Amino acid sequence: MLTLNKLKALRRVLVDAKRFYLTRIFGIDLHPTCQFSLSAYFDRTFPKGVHVGKESYVAVQSMILTHDRVRGLYVHTRVGKRCFIGARSILMPGVQIGDGCVVAAGAVVTRDVPPGCIVAGNPAKVIREGIDVLAYGRYRNADETTLRLKAEGLLD
Amino acid sequence: MLTLNKLKALRRVLVDAKRFYLTRIFGIDLHPTCQFSLSAYFDRTFPKGVHVGKESYVAVQSMILTHDRVRGLYVHTRVGKRCFIGARSILMPGVQIGDGCVVAAGAVVTRDVPPGCIVAGNPAKVIREGIDVLAYGRYRNADETTLRLKAEGLLD
Amino acid sequence: MLTLNKLKALRRVLVDAKRFYLTRIFGIDLHPTCQFSLSAYFDRTFPKGVHVGKESYVAVQSMILTHDRVRGLYVHTRVGKRCFIGARSILMPGVQIGDGCVVAAGAVVTRDVPPGCIVAGNPAKVIREGIDVLAYGRYRNADETTLRLKAEGLLD
Repeated sequence: MLTLNKLKALRRVLVDAKRFYLTRIFGIDLHPTCQFSLSAYFDRTFPKGVHVGKESYVAVQSMILTHDRVRGLYVHTRVGKRCFIGARSILMPGVQIGDGCVVAAGAVVTRDVPPGCIVAGNPAKVIREGIDVLAYGRYRNADETTLRLKAEGLLD
Repeated sequence: MLTLNKLKALRRVLVDAKRFYLTRIFGIDLHPTCQFSLSAYFDRTFPKGVHVGKESYVAVQSMILTHDRVRGLYVHTRVGKRCFIGARSILMPGVQIGDGCVVAAGAVVTRDVPPGCIVAGNPAKVIREGIDVLAYGRYRNADETTLRLKAEGLLD
Repeated sequence: MLTLNKLKALRRVLVDAKRFYLTRIFGIDLHPTCQFSLSAYFDRTFPKGVHVGKESYVAVQSMILTHDRVRGLYVHTRVGKRCFIGARSILMPGVQIGDGCVVAAGAVVTRDVPPGCIVAGNPAKVIREGIDVLAYGRYRNADETTLRLKAEGLLD
């Protein structure tokens, strides 16, 4: 556990460093409360087009694109508030993700997503509507679920 | 060829080192006979949930997930024996892959897969059933196929 | 901007170094005019099977595969002229991409693609035919589009 805690502290320092150069040097618009993985990919060809809202989470190896070389497009791609952008998902250039959305792992999002939706697949489709999430796209009962798993000894 | 052989020897050392820290430090359950790429991703948020069986192969950039932040889930994801988990595929948290299965490159597996199946796509679907494979998910005639290609001079 | 220009110069040096070792040491067939991202993945298990044509572009994290361990296959995978192989796409072993094609980001291409097509999805499907592109798969009006966006002040 000590080892894991030290690794977590190191990761926090590296994430802060990444946040600094992404926002200050590249001009990417990351809300101060948003969180992201070190391996999240923000398009640096048109960095000003990346927008991530309050209390959103951008998970491991996910990719937010803002340019399209084929069409010569440089556009704004927006993630709303309280979203969860899942592992290795791709947000195509120009896509807008509404508040409180969850993008499933591996999803390739080619169209705008209305607030409160879960999208999954390639191309991504809405698989659930009207979800109601807390910060970072977490379900209201997420903490409860984790505590239950712990109580049942399933996390040891 | 000398260069390639040296690279392969180096890779073997690095894979052994990765195996050591994944199993001993993180507690990931990798069968001693399973093989994996250096770039394979095993979820370290709940490392004890990762299980890879005897004589299975986890290919380049594939991802085995065991937690779901959105729902607060920390679960066990299992790969059976003699499976081949293809390049850049994703096994979603909690998924169970039966013995002797092949997960195609880029597949995103969201449901359990019965033994002896090939799955592909996002979301992954069963595209073949009842396959009969040897160790590491190899077809019985795989060596024969390779020898034939060599004999035909197609590998030079 | 100075910073970005210096980064671009550094990237050019690294790309040239990668081109050198891929073609001279591994024997990968990259046309001298083709361009690729540093993070593009060319299958080194059967490197001679990779072929990328004149004035084609292989984008960030895309993957060109030439072997299939399951079936013991080592085959030739070919990208034609003036193609754009999009971010994090996968070309499966043996696939042939015709001249002037665009492979969308995240696509997993499992079948040959006729010339002048756009393919997307997993498995990838043709979503447009008969496109007419310039070098690197760019639309004829791509420069014009970019200039218009600049004139409208949308790129600042």
